[in-house]
Amino acid sequence: MEFKGRDIISIEDLSQQEINYILDVSQSIEPLAKVGSDMLRGKILATLFFEPSTRTRLSFETAMLKLGGGCIGFAEPVLSSTWKGENLVDTIRTVENYADVIVLRHSLEGSARLAAEFSCVPLINAGSGAEEHPTQALIDLYTMRKEKGRIDGLRVALVGDLRYGRAVHSLAYALALFNVELYLVSPDTLRMRKDVLNVIKNKISVTEYTSLDNIISKIDVLYVTRIQKERFPEATEYAKVKGAYRIELKTLTNAKDDLIILHPLPRVDEIAPEVDTTPQARYFQQVWNGIVVRMALLSLVLGTPPDCPKTNKNP
Amino acid sequence: MEFKGRDIISIEDLSQQEINYILDVSQSIEPLAKVGSDMLRGKILATLFFEPSTRTRLSFETAMLKLGGGCIGFAEPVLSSTWKGENLVDTIRTVENYADVIVLRHSLEGSARLAAEFSCVPLINAGSGAEEHPTQALIDLYTMRKEKGRIDGLRVALVGDLRYGRAVHSLAYALALFNVELYLVSPDTLRMRKDVLNVIKNKISVTEYTSLDNIISKIDVLYVTRIQKERFPEATEYAKVKGAYRIELKTLTNAKDDLIILHPLPRVDEIAPEVDTTPQARYFQQVWNGIVVRMALLSLVLGTPPDCPKTNKNP
Amino acid sequence: MEFKGRDIISIEDLSQQEINYILDVSQSIEPLAKVGSDMLRGKILATLFFEPSTRTRLSFETAMLKLGGGCIGFAEPVLSSTWKGENLVDTIRTVENYADVIVLRHSLEGSARLAAEFSCVPLINAGSGAEEHPTQALIDLYTMRKEKGRIDGLRVALVGDLRYGRAVHSLAYALALFNVELYLVSPDTLRMRKDVLNVIKNKISVTEYTSLDNIISKIDVLYVTRIQKERFPEATEYAKVKGAYRIELKTLTNAKDDLIILHPLPRVDEIAPEVDTTPQARYFQQVWNGIVVRMALLSLVLGTPPDCPKTNKNP
Repeated sequence: MEFKGRDIISIEDLSQQEINYILDVSQSIEPLAKVGSDMLRGKILATLFFEPSTRTRLSFETAMLKLGGGCIGFAEPVLSSTWKGENLVDTIRTVENYADVIVLRHSLEGSARLAAEFSCVPLINAGSGAEEHPTQALIDLYTMRKEKGRIDGLRVALVGDLRYGRAVHSLAYALALFNVELYLVSPDTLRMRKDVLNVIKNKISVTEYTSLDNIISKIDVLYVTRIQKERFPEATEYAKVKGAYRIELKTLTNAKDDLIILHPLPRVDEIAPEVDTTPQARYFQQVWNGIVVRMALLSLVLGTPPDCPKTNKNP
Repeated sequence: MEFKGRDIISIEDLSQQEINYILDVSQSIEPLAKVGSDMLRGKILATLFFEPSTRTRLSFETAMLKLGGGCIGFAEPVLSSTWKGENLVDTIRTVENYADVIVLRHSLEGSARLAAEFSCVPLINAGSGAEEHPTQALIDLYTMRKEKGRIDGLRVALVGDLRYGRAVHSLAYALALFNVELYLVSPDTLRMRKDVLNVIKNKISVTEYTSLDNIISKIDVLYVTRIQKERFPEATEYAKVKGAYRIELKTLTNAKDDLIILHPLPRVDEIAPEVDTTPQARYFQQVWNGIVVRMALLSLVLGTPPDCPKTNKNP
Repeated sequence: MEFKGRDIISIEDLSQQEINYILDVSQSIEPLAKVGSDMLRGKILATLFFEPSTRTRLSFETAMLKLGGGCIGFAEPVLSSTWKGENLVDTIRTVENYADVIVLRHSLEGSARLAAEFSCVPLINAGSGAEEHPTQALIDLYTMRKEKGRIDGLRVALVGDLRYGRAVHSLAYALALFNVELYLVSPDTLRMRKDVLNVIKNKISVTEYTSLDNIISKIDVLYVTRIQKERFPEATEYAKVKGAYRIELKTLTNAKDDLIILHPLPRVDEIAPEVDTTPQARYFQQVWNGIVVRMALLSLVLGTPPDCPKTNKNP
């Protein structure tokens, strides 16, 4: 399987086989995340964040440093504005001379796809408009496989704002490639978008709920997302919904012992701090897995993945 | 003496023996500051500056680069705001996955202590609220010992704003651990805070003055601090005070030849540029010493200090 | 020829022999730009951008990383303001303790010269006020020599705003050291400044035009610059001028096959996108050459240039 030179724009561009391969490489590379490596020495990553996301930027930079490479880039609107007057394509044609790989975050939908078409070096989408955030979905899958030993056969609940969250759409597409049972739990106004729903319903079992109560005892993975105040016309409506979908200790009373709770972070009120110390909480481990998966992606698109015994057996 | 994994939050957390050890390690590491080292290769420093301080941030980053490590982080309010909605504890729990050591600057008192309690990796306080700035105090001590050969027995004058300056409080606490004579020189409205004064008066000889005139001929170290306009209700009052505490060539007429003049920088008007070329001026050497001491601290908390012959004799 | 420790402030400080040497070293170092090097391992570059210029900053940082060195600095006004109250000289005296070489961009004319006078480490001017941008001129010359095999004998047209563009003044001074025929093409209101014109007219053949039509068939190098709206009191006047100096496919009908088109970038409307795919377009190659020339300059002022066979023959 050849990833050298490829762009990572959408989770929908990846087959199940390719996703499994990325997760295998992630597993192989995880020990290097602890001790560091010189695998990408002399290589340069450019992080172009036209929209700020300190968390995602630092995660990619950490991944590159741990592989021995260097980082350049900009982190915020005030600096990206110095490129203004210039179109995105010219910016990419400039930066491809500086860097061996580009990570782009941009507020416009389609921007990552456009940029990748013109870039001579591999480009990784770190969020474009309200569209997908493919590396987050890969991190979520990696966490599930690492924690539960498999993805097939899992019962996964996605909870919260399923309408506007870009991470959750990428994850839904990705899960639809596996043999999972999917439970969508959200207020009526924040149900999963119809276009996404139609695609995934054709592939896997999907049921929608407005409450966790009836399914909490069945599920293996509880994936929680932010519900943003801005989505509600009235503050009282928001307060009501927010409370109803908050995960607290009592929410977990009937949960399986080996349930895992995930969240793409940052968390605001969706998960009570008291849940952090339960054996089910895995959302901060996801941060670590984020570095691992991004190390795997950087090494793959730059053509230097580590030996990967598991995959090599069935090439 | 074990520093591996320790946080550096307040100068008051350190014993005299521990401070001496840090200064010994600084002395041992100083040659590496010139030629560079691979001591921390593969390690990552995260600089989290919720309050901007370009000088302190660059000093820490330089120290890390000179030890062969890498740096990630953010430098300004506009970026730190992208963590908002998230509490500081969650930010730390995220960043501890990226970095092997964290340097934090935050405008709230107690923030560094709180962050350190939750961080799995060592955390160094680079200024929290109006509280201490412990690494600056260590740099001041290192400069005194390097320039005068000892700290015990020195006559040290602290001049200027002794009430609000956070560096000067940390320094006063630190000096009180040594056998020094301390002279506090300030306008009445900017005298050293009572709580600090009470602590240090119990330990060493402290006398307060409103003018340098009577002590300039006696002292070995003249430590100058900024007097900020904002501290005075009336501009005329500020102008008068500012002039009275400005160090000029004529101020030094009766000073010892081997007096040394220190300042935490940036300097505004407190020291006339004509003083820069006197043999007594040492404030820019302090900048260099800052890198040295921070290299020592990073190597200590990461458990890789250089061999330190002086200390090894009396372990 | 000794460059170790030298500042690069103005193209006018360099002799033709010195410029040739820099271009020779650039040619020798170009292979390292592809594979990376450890030549400056342990060295630190400080990029002090009091005025933002993401493109120039990233180019210098890339050059330093490709030589194995590290980078510190600040990129924007919001951070440089944290140095305020402090004068530029004190900032330089501080940063020279952190870095082995400084790259400065500042909005005030003369700032780079002043800073260099006080800096113990070499300082490279990345743009000071409306004055010169010497490294851009060296990049332009390097591109011409690389693409055409020589500079002497070339017919070069500078087109657009020749009055306010700082890059074009540095380039004009540099070209005047070689045996070139210079064609200046601009609207009347944006003609080359008299002081620059007087200097270069004494050295080489210079003719001024208001249209490209009569010379397009003769020239070897077409150097295009931005025409900024702000230079025109009336929008209609700007629109007319902008259109007249825009390079399109039809502009090139009578051009030589081996003409090369350069532009310091960013490009706005001055060159139609359709021109990008012509064999004459070289403006994105200039970006690559920018890294090469800056690698050469960094290695030169730090005293570690690569072996340079061409130059060694005639030392």
